[in-house]
Amino acid sequence: MAASKEQELGNQLNLKLDSNGLITAVTVDADTREVLMVAFMNKEALEKTMATGKATYWSRSRQKFWVKGEESGNTQQIVSVTIDCDQDAVVLKVRQKGAACHNGFESCFYRQIVPVAGGGGGGLELKTIAAPLMDPDKMYKKS
Amino acid sequence: MAASKEQELGNQLNLKLDSNGLITAVTVDADTREVLMVAFMNKEALEKTMATGKATYWSRSRQKFWVKGEESGNTQQIVSVTIDCDQDAVVLKVRQKGAACHNGFESCFYRQIVPVAGGGGGGLELKTIAAPLMDPDKMYKKS
Repeated sequence: MAASKEQELGNQLNLKLDSNGLITAVTVDADTREVLMVAFMNKEALEKTMATGKATYWSRSRQKFWVKGEESGNTQQIVSVTIDCDQDAVVLKVRQKGAACHNGFESCFYRQIVPVAGGGGGGLELKTIAAPLMDPDKMYKKS
Repeated sequence: MAASKEQELGNQLNLKLDSNGLITAVTVDADTREVLMVAFMNKEALEKTMATGKATYWSRSRQKFWVKGEESGNTQQIVSVTIDCDQDAVVLKVRQKGAACHNGFESCFYRQIVPVAGGGGGGLELKTIAAPLMDPDKMYKKS
């Protein structure tokens, strides 16, 4: 099989990393199938995720591994991990404990993009379509 | 509301673009809720998507707008678009016509990451978990 065919259709894990050494991770609730969050992984974060069964990302802002829920207790237990055709994105199906979003919402995608009400000019705005599950001020330990 | 609070909890669309002017787009089948693909959008691609109701991405490899299905006929009709807390990712719920993946699969995520069978050494490999819906050689017009 040619290299690109093997990458797309073969059984070898051969991540297509971006210029920062990362792939995109989309995390989905295994039961409700809602998309909970989008984050990044490097190769080691993916290996840790597979080895421990706990969703582990690479935090770009903190430049370190980020075991989801380590601080908040809102862990993500891995059910399955799938990878896309060109191997630059994975989907994690997880059992989410509590809220996935640091703002206390079940999912980070709690706002819908809609046309500005009565605008007529084609502008877009956001409409909140969910209520928080938890008080974000109580999710994290205060230092 | 402080700027960051407004970004995360307000109703103003204020995309957090990466260094290439892009956000991540996760496309989900509105009926089955399967993640179909992950791609990128710039601000204009998002505006075109909202204005036309047809999923429109920014192709990084071709550096141009990419109206999904324009060539293959496998279009994506928008049902809803949601945005995440820091406004750097959107979820498109769509009605997918045909296959979302250029390899003929319904979803690009047709392979699961699994431990190497009988490996014991902790290696990972891919296992194909879906069958193609269509013959990819018949999806695109030959030039």
